[in-house]
Amino acid sequence: IEYLNDDVLRRLCEAEHPADLASQFSEFAPDQAVDVFLRLSPQCCADVLAHMEYDLQREIAAGLADDMLAAVIARMPSDDRVDLLHSMPDDRGETLLHLLAKAEREDIRRLSSYDEDTAGAIMTSEYATLQPHLSARQAIEKLRLEAPDKETIYYAYVIDENRRLLGLVSLRELILARPDRSIETIMRREPICANVDDDQEDVARQMAKYDLLAMPVINGNEALVGIVTFDDVHDVIEQEATEDFHRMGSISQGSGTDDLLDIGLRDASPWLLIQKRLPWLLALVFMNIFSGAGIAYYEDTIQATVALVFFLPLLIGSGGNAGAQSATLMVRAMAIGDVVRKDWLRMVGKEIGIALAIGLCMGVAVSFIGIFRGGPDVAVVVSLAMVAVVLFGSLLGLSLPFLLTRFRMDPATASAPLVTSVADIGGVVIYFGIASWYLGLHSVV
Amino acid sequence: IEYLNDDVLRRLCEAEHPADLASQFSEFAPDQAVDVFLRLSPQCCADVLAHMEYDLQREIAAGLADDMLAAVIARMPSDDRVDLLHSMPDDRGETLLHLLAKAEREDIRRLSSYDEDTAGAIMTSEYATLQPHLSARQAIEKLRLEAPDKETIYYAYVIDENRRLLGLVSLRELILARPDRSIETIMRREPICANVDDDQEDVARQMAKYDLLAMPVINGNEALVGIVTFDDVHDVIEQEATEDFHRMGSISQGSGTDDLLDIGLRDASPWLLIQKRLPWLLALVFMNIFSGAGIAYYEDTIQATVALVFFLPLLIGSGGNAGAQSATLMVRAMAIGDVVRKDWLRMVGKEIGIALAIGLCMGVAVSFIGIFRGGPDVAVVVSLAMVAVVLFGSLLGLSLPFLLTRFRMDPATASAPLVTSVADIGGVVIYFGIASWYLGLHSVV
Repeated sequence: IEYLNDDVLRRLCEAEHPADLASQFSEFAPDQAVDVFLRLSPQCCADVLAHMEYDLQREIAAGLADDMLAAVIARMPSDDRVDLLHSMPDDRGETLLHLLAKAEREDIRRLSSYDEDTAGAIMTSEYATLQPHLSARQAIEKLRLEAPDKETIYYAYVIDENRRLLGLVSLRELILARPDRSIETIMRREPICANVDDDQEDVARQMAKYDLLAMPVINGNEALVGIVTFDDVHDVIEQEATEDFHRMGSISQGSGTDDLLDIGLRDASPWLLIQKRLPWLLALVFMNIFSGAGIAYYEDTIQATVALVFFLPLLIGSGGNAGAQSATLMVRAMAIGDVVRKDWLRMVGKEIGIALAIGLCMGVAVSFIGIFRGGPDVAVVVSLAMVAVVLFGSLLGLSLPFLLTRFRMDPATASAPLVTSVADIGGVVIYFGIASWYLGLHSVV
Repeated sequence: IEYLNDDVLRRLCEAEHPADLASQFSEFAPDQAVDVFLRLSPQCCADVLAHMEYDLQREIAAGLADDMLAAVIARMPSDDRVDLLHSMPDDRGETLLHLLAKAEREDIRRLSSYDEDTAGAIMTSEYATLQPHLSARQAIEKLRLEAPDKETIYYAYVIDENRRLLGLVSLRELILARPDRSIETIMRREPICANVDDDQEDVARQMAKYDLLAMPVINGNEALVGIVTFDDVHDVIEQEATEDFHRMGSISQGSGTDDLLDIGLRDASPWLLIQKRLPWLLALVFMNIFSGAGIAYYEDTIQATVALVFFLPLLIGSGGNAGAQSATLMVRAMAIGDVVRKDWLRMVGKEIGIALAIGLCMGVAVSFIGIFRGGPDVAVVVSLAMVAVVLFGSLLGLSLPFLLTRFRMDPATASAPLVTSVADIGGVVIYFGIASWYLGLHSVV
């Protein structure tokens, strides 16, 4: 692509979808990408930039001159350009803002004033509005004129003189209505809407639930300030799923443009990955010291029957795995809203039954190995311990996500490694406790 | 709601969004829900049913008489009713099919002939088509007439007499175009489209990438057979994320209408959950036997220095946790297409650096505990083992997902518990291996 002459290049860029061009750019070296960019029209640049990943966006923006970049930013969708400006050093952002027209500058300032992860942060200000007294014919005419500047004209929002949201009318309804009917009589009143401060995940869930193409966003005065469109929902659902996924794997979360969620694993720097991974690993080491302490407490038991150590990884592993399973099921069910906090007691009741059944199956399986490796006594100890350990791990995995929600933390923080580590401690104590009691070897420290 | 008289009830159902009504129904007992259903209009029943979860749908369908249910099914969106019929016993489905009009019966037969999880299975047959010679004005008129029966009229597909897909025109473009221009001159040629056999996840990704409201689906003869709409994409993205999540937690996958993904954790029967959880737990028990065998092999070393057992959970725990982290990062990155198979070597190079850095930090941390608990010799053994174990676990967690893709398995099968269990075996061998070597206590069995 970089060796084409300008004409061919321009025609190519008109024929190809910006999303495809954006993926092509990701194959280039940054300076090469900037070279190609300089030869495109500002509109084409804006479209391609809007489809790029954040880190590539930043590199290219860094390579463009201020006036060129300002022209491109002026043509980008309002939600995307705010994100781009956010990722730049503050002074460059200010310089660029001053090169933009007043209306755009104010729009950007307003959109960037909302907190990350809220409806305000993902909404766009390019929505179509209508006045209630217009006729359907006049409304269609107005939408036709405004179409090029709007993100969608399939939904139009009816507002009064104070921008208060009165209703919603879809283009489909407008086309179906008699041309002389007034918008007031066609519109759906009290449309489903979000507040600027609402969590982006809730907005996405509402939109998915009601199959909405776009959702209006209002501020504290019930004035319409933006809309969230369906394409943002995909990103939010995927991002939230990735976030929960990472939490479950004990990977620390961060925020801001340096985050792993924005950069992607392939391009993340080793230093960033160490920052994300080390804190949890160190924390878990200190949890595991308690398992060690448990072992130390039962040192005499171990010394008397070393064969018991043979079953240690198996038992604590099973408790941890059963716990990881319950935690996984519960975290995901809570994330998609299938289970809520008040279901806890009901879930515990069910889980006790399930864990006992699973524990018994595993106890029987493991007792055969027990007889073979350590005789009937060890077999009894091992199977009893298996039932208890699986029950403990399962209940732990089930309860931890609920407990975390109780303290307003993300349930996904009950990660598999955390549950496994805590289950390990319990496993050691339960196993050697049962062994000491059954084999009459209790040691007092 | 169940004590309202018929008039009030009917008016309520017109005012409320079907999705809200559907959530209200989920609070009722099944027979109560059926009672209320019998008093609604068939159209209202159809809308509510389409928004319900599968298990509730099935219960209500089971409670309705055949002719009533057939009337409701006739009014449901084409993709939803196929799913509903699928979930019924075969003979009831056949009876119902015979009560439907011929066109609907054929539509259902055709849609149900596609494999689950393909574009064909999630597409709807209610799309708008246009002929290339129509003018923009005629096209809008045609869409207006057809609007009530179509899932969307915002995209219309241009086909020839053999239903071959020629192009795509959006309602926005139609409204913007001069009324006398022909569709041929307005339409976008070669629109992005899917094949009926394409994986639903790929379709969802393409739609999210290109921000499409709907994507046309063609068969082997390039004839248009359906469209996938944006609301299906949300469901697919969420379902695939849940599937990966469950796999990562070692929860077995199934298929068909009995699956956990469709029923939801809250309403899943204990028996189903046991089926999903037990196989993996038993498999992992047998993996852990190898850890036990590793311990048995080094029994003499352990008997000589029981203090080493103190560090066992800590070391194998750390290796497992580091492995779970890499596996989590890798599985999710592969799921969202950030990392592909050919990136393996590059990722391994980076991971070695990261794992060494993390391992060294953790080795230093743990050496303090080592000195305190077992003296300088144990401290050296423990820190060396920590570096080796973290490196082993990380590389294992990184490579397993790649290896699974190589054998055409889902990378998410490299679940945290599986990685942890394999890392445990490695951890035992590495730890006691280093201990025997350093402390000169090697035992030969």
